[in-house]
Amino acid sequence: MNLTAGWAKSLLGVLCVCVGLAAGPSLGEAAADREKLLTEPGVYGTFALFSLGDTWTKQDQATRISQLTLFKGVVEQHREKIAIDLYLLRGLSDQADLMFRVHAAELHDTQQFLVDLQSSAFGKYLKGAGLMHGLTKKPAYVPGFPDQLKADLKASSESGPKPYAIVIPVRKNADWWALDQDKRAAMMQEHTEAALPYLKTVKRKLYHSSGLDDLDFITYFETPKLEDFHSLILSLERIQEFRYVRRFGHPTLIGAAKSVDELIEALAQ
Amino acid sequence: MNLTAGWAKSLLGVLCVCVGLAAGPSLGEAAADREKLLTEPGVYGTFALFSLGDTWTKQDQATRISQLTLFKGVVEQHREKIAIDLYLLRGLSDQADLMFRVHAAELHDTQQFLVDLQSSAFGKYLKGAGLMHGLTKKPAYVPGFPDQLKADLKASSESGPKPYAIVIPVRKNADWWALDQDKRAAMMQEHTEAALPYLKTVKRKLYHSSGLDDLDFITYFETPKLEDFHSLILSLERIQEFRYVRRFGHPTLIGAAKSVDELIEALAQ
Amino acid sequence: MNLTAGWAKSLLGVLCVCVGLAAGPSLGEAAADREKLLTEPGVYGTFALFSLGDTWTKQDQATRISQLTLFKGVVEQHREKIAIDLYLLRGLSDQADLMFRVHAAELHDTQQFLVDLQSSAFGKYLKGAGLMHGLTKKPAYVPGFPDQLKADLKASSESGPKPYAIVIPVRKNADWWALDQDKRAAMMQEHTEAALPYLKTVKRKLYHSSGLDDLDFITYFETPKLEDFHSLILSLERIQEFRYVRRFGHPTLIGAAKSVDELIEALAQ
Amino acid sequence: MNLTAGWAKSLLGVLCVCVGLAAGPSLGEAAADREKLLTEPGVYGTFALFSLGDTWTKQDQATRISQLTLFKGVVEQHREKIAIDLYLLRGLSDQADLMFRVHAAELHDTQQFLVDLQSSAFGKYLKGAGLMHGLTKKPAYVPGFPDQLKADLKASSESGPKPYAIVIPVRKNADWWALDQDKRAAMMQEHTEAALPYLKTVKRKLYHSSGLDDLDFITYFETPKLEDFHSLILSLERIQEFRYVRRFGHPTLIGAAKSVDELIEALAQ
Amino acid sequence: MNLTAGWAKSLLGVLCVCVGLAAGPSLGEAAADREKLLTEPGVYGTFALFSLGDTWTKQDQATRISQLTLFKGVVEQHREKIAIDLYLLRGLSDQADLMFRVHAAELHDTQQFLVDLQSSAFGKYLKGAGLMHGLTKKPAYVPGFPDQLKADLKASSESGPKPYAIVIPVRKNADWWALDQDKRAAMMQEHTEAALPYLKTVKRKLYHSSGLDDLDFITYFETPKLEDFHSLILSLERIQEFRYVRRFGHPTLIGAAKSVDELIEALAQ
Repeated sequence: MNLTAGWAKSLLGVLCVCVGLAAGPSLGEAAADREKLLTEPGVYGTFALFSLGDTWTKQDQATRISQLTLFKGVVEQHREKIAIDLYLLRGLSDQADLMFRVHAAELHDTQQFLVDLQSSAFGKYLKGAGLMHGLTKKPAYVPGFPDQLKADLKASSESGPKPYAIVIPVRKNADWWALDQDKRAAMMQEHTEAALPYLKTVKRKLYHSSGLDDLDFITYFETPKLEDFHSLILSLERIQEFRYVRRFGHPTLIGAAKSVDELIEALAQ
Repeated sequence: MNLTAGWAKSLLGVLCVCVGLAAGPSLGEAAADREKLLTEPGVYGTFALFSLGDTWTKQDQATRISQLTLFKGVVEQHREKIAIDLYLLRGLSDQADLMFRVHAAELHDTQQFLVDLQSSAFGKYLKGAGLMHGLTKKPAYVPGFPDQLKADLKASSESGPKPYAIVIPVRKNADWWALDQDKRAAMMQEHTEAALPYLKTVKRKLYHSSGLDDLDFITYFETPKLEDFHSLILSLERIQEFRYVRRFGHPTLIGAAKSVDELIEALAQ
Repeated sequence: MNLTAGWAKSLLGVLCVCVGLAAGPSLGEAAADREKLLTEPGVYGTFALFSLGDTWTKQDQATRISQLTLFKGVVEQHREKIAIDLYLLRGLSDQADLMFRVHAAELHDTQQFLVDLQSSAFGKYLKGAGLMHGLTKKPAYVPGFPDQLKADLKASSESGPKPYAIVIPVRKNADWWALDQDKRAAMMQEHTEAALPYLKTVKRKLYHSSGLDDLDFITYFETPKLEDFHSLILSLERIQEFRYVRRFGHPTLIGAAKSVDELIEALAQ
Repeated sequence: MNLTAGWAKSLLGVLCVCVGLAAGPSLGEAAADREKLLTEPGVYGTFALFSLGDTWTKQDQATRISQLTLFKGVVEQHREKIAIDLYLLRGLSDQADLMFRVHAAELHDTQQFLVDLQSSAFGKYLKGAGLMHGLTKKPAYVPGFPDQLKADLKASSESGPKPYAIVIPVRKNADWWALDQDKRAAMMQEHTEAALPYLKTVKRKLYHSSGLDDLDFITYFETPKLEDFHSLILSLERIQEFRYVRRFGHPTLIGAAKSVDELIEALAQ
Repeated sequence: MNLTAGWAKSLLGVLCVCVGLAAGPSLGEAAADREKLLTEPGVYGTFALFSLGDTWTKQDQATRISQLTLFKGVVEQHREKIAIDLYLLRGLSDQADLMFRVHAAELHDTQQFLVDLQSSAFGKYLKGAGLMHGLTKKPAYVPGFPDQLKADLKASSESGPKPYAIVIPVRKNADWWALDQDKRAAMMQEHTEAALPYLKTVKRKLYHSSGLDDLDFITYFETPKLEDFHSLILSLERIQEFRYVRRFGHPTLIGAAKSVDELIEALAQ
């Protein structure tokens, strides 16, 4: 196994360089403004889940590597327009093997990427295992929060890698939506205060999904410390707002954030 | 990839022309009055979803193109009697790859089209992923609305392409049906007023399904701006009528409207 | 396509005649008293659903026709004991491609038919997609209805073909069964009155399923006019009894009634 | 078909005799005390469901018969320790084709049988379709019943074959378990009285499943007259205890009791 | 069968020795401190379920044995970092054939093991059938229990093998989490007292899952006596806390604890 793996790594190195060279020029200025897509409101976030068919591992390694190289090409090409993050779910979630998080100004750019991905040589081995869309929006309740809470929220999270990513879809019940804005704001303030102690180690991002999916929200988390994340969720189960949640998870997805090259290495094994 | 795609486009061009020539004469006067089917009451609307089996992409491109050409023939032939709209769901919805929206005076005409489609060479690769039927009817509550609201409703939506189509099945609970007509009318007026601001960018169509499916309604939307559609649904979640909805979505389907040729091009890749 | 279809039709004609000749003598007096099975109480009604595996269409047409001929033989042979009706669901329902409605004095005769069907050359391509049993019984509430209502119920439905068949399984909740007989009778009278306007165009038949399946009733309808059927169901959703229904449909099945020869022709395409 | 079936029957006869001879000596005293296992408390009852993969019927009959003979060997060998009953579900239930009811003093004996079964040449064609465990216990409520009811319960059921077997899993809600023993006893007395009229034609057996499965009870019935069984269940839906049932069926399984040889004959077709 | 099995056992013996020799040196000091992982708080427990694809048994025995030997190598290699327990579910649970219980300080070590397992030659035959994560924590309520109860809890369970393992996932409802700590503590004391009589024969372990899965807890049990386990669960269904449980099981998993060599022997059959 070591010998083969070593050979594969060398080959991967060569291939990655080649693709890098080829894809390089096309990146430059034209590349999507990833920072903007990841921080601004009005951006569509898509979570696309795939399982690897059992015929994948039945191919020899060289074939797999050449297909993964084409896969890398598809990702790099679309990164000119959209922001693409990759996660390895295998071994952490039973829903899927891979997850793509895509941020795009228009959903048809995301569709084009996913259609190209599934049409590629590697795509033949991918089986769709889920697709969720949401929209980033300006915070709805924060403007009305007390100044101290606003200041606390601004304290940035610790830098450094946050290798675990967790995705939890949420649907609220009809009672929630029928509440007046003040009551919802008060509960969201309680929610925010309960989450405050975990701000440093658990990074959060919210997507609004009503109408775009059978959900109201997609909640996305990154953390180096899953125990803190567990404590955060436990705190949120104990506040009043949780009584208005009719779907929480189903699925709860845990993945490990990977670069394209890391993902290719894991799948080439 | 570029070279192959170029060749495919040329070949597609040739094939489309040929089919066009062959199918052309049979259209003429005999063709279904699409406008009538899409606007009149008493018409059956069917939403048929299909996934492409994983053997599809394993064929070479020439074979796929020849099968797609036969597929186009089946669609054109049935367009003499029924109205057929096509949508690419792949990359937008995980329920299916393709959706057909069919309007017909009689459901057996729709059945004949779908049976022929599945019997065709292309049909071998299609796997049924859902089928929903509804009936168009005259508006039940609009006649009782205030004149101003009626006038507002008549304001036509902006022209121009509406590339995104969304389908949301709805089932109301027993409490809804037990309400007297006045109370339901009042709530539907609130519903209509909440939807008014989105009339310009979100086009809507309603199908009645009780008995024809495990649904009461199929709601169909077209829009160039998904953010507006999201805001529309959010507004509808906040009104009183929403408490009487026991199924909303499941699935929520998003697709991109395509002509036959555009769809063939996407599938021939 | 036309040429092939023409050849298939001729071949089908020949085959049907041959099978007809061979099967003919065994029918005669020994054949099941279909009329009796379809009208008397104490008869078991079974709805058996099948999908056609995707290997079916991959065979050449001659092979398919020879297998369908054997299929016809199995049906004819069992018709000596049981009543068998056939429906094409493909293109109307996503649950299955075919449905058999079987009436038998004993369920083991139905079992023998279905086992023989699945053991036949054609049966290899059938995938079970559902099986529901019910029992015909004398009307429970009609004897207590007012005379006028009884008379109205006797008005026979319009003759002529009723090409659409709809099957809706029903389960009532514990509250229903806990009601005393009078209250249930009053609600069933309201139910019957609501259904009266549709008696002419929608034919109904009721099967009792408690214990024989995860259902209380199987309701079966035939109609040439689906719009009337939709209106009938809408009326039934609005009466008091509907509040005691905890399962209605799931699935709702729509099919087109076919003779064996018509079904064979549809499947031989 | 007749000729082939005739040949198969002869061959089956020969094979059955051979296996009979071979398996004979090993039975004798060592065989499981079936009577004891079927009547005593503290015995584990397992219901194992299997579907036959579609490759099964694609083998020629001689191969199938030789595999069924090995299957018979596995059953006979394990009958030395455990009691095994067989049922043909195909054509009666859509959940599975075969059901095994196994009674054993220890669950690992049942596991060993099922592992050996799946490892056998026949086992390659079996696809697990369900597995439920329960435990036989002394009656909990009968000791407190009035003497007359106790006497009525002792009246043995009619002898003679009871070809139909029905299995209905049951889960009670939290309210049931929170009731005090007296209230539960009173309701179980009402339950027993409601079931009394069907004692003669419907044989019953109860298995306790809490913790061994997602169930509280497995109820098992045998009857020659399904109409009586239907009436029994209808009576039980009408009593107070039924309001405490949160799962009844799902699945409801109907099968035909078969000897090994009868089952082999049915599967060799 | 005996001859073949005998040969397989000899071959297995040889292979196991070889692997043992090869894997031996790498264990030594570096091996995971299994005792620590199994007893300390702050450890991640993962339950990974797999089914064996039907192509597995279609290979000849020698191939299977060589693949199982590689499987043993993967397990031994990862045991340097994590604690791995194996269970045979086939014949006891219909959810899966195999279960791994993994304890690790970090979830990415568990992920690496499962990814390596699925990439191995044996892994090609494994189909993921479930994955649940939890975290061990210090007891939340025990510190407040009366001294006598604390003492009772310390009484160690009977030594000796506990061949059956049962896994029951639990989710509590929003009402539970909204209760104040005192009320929850009082109910957990009642829970603990109800479980006390079964402490000797049923060993328990608790994992906290909120946020790591669609669960709040994974409860794990080991026992030589399933009847005692059934009585324990019955006791827990009768106490007040059970009303706050909205998911109990689904699935309930029963397996037989096996060493790697025992598992290999079972699968090599």
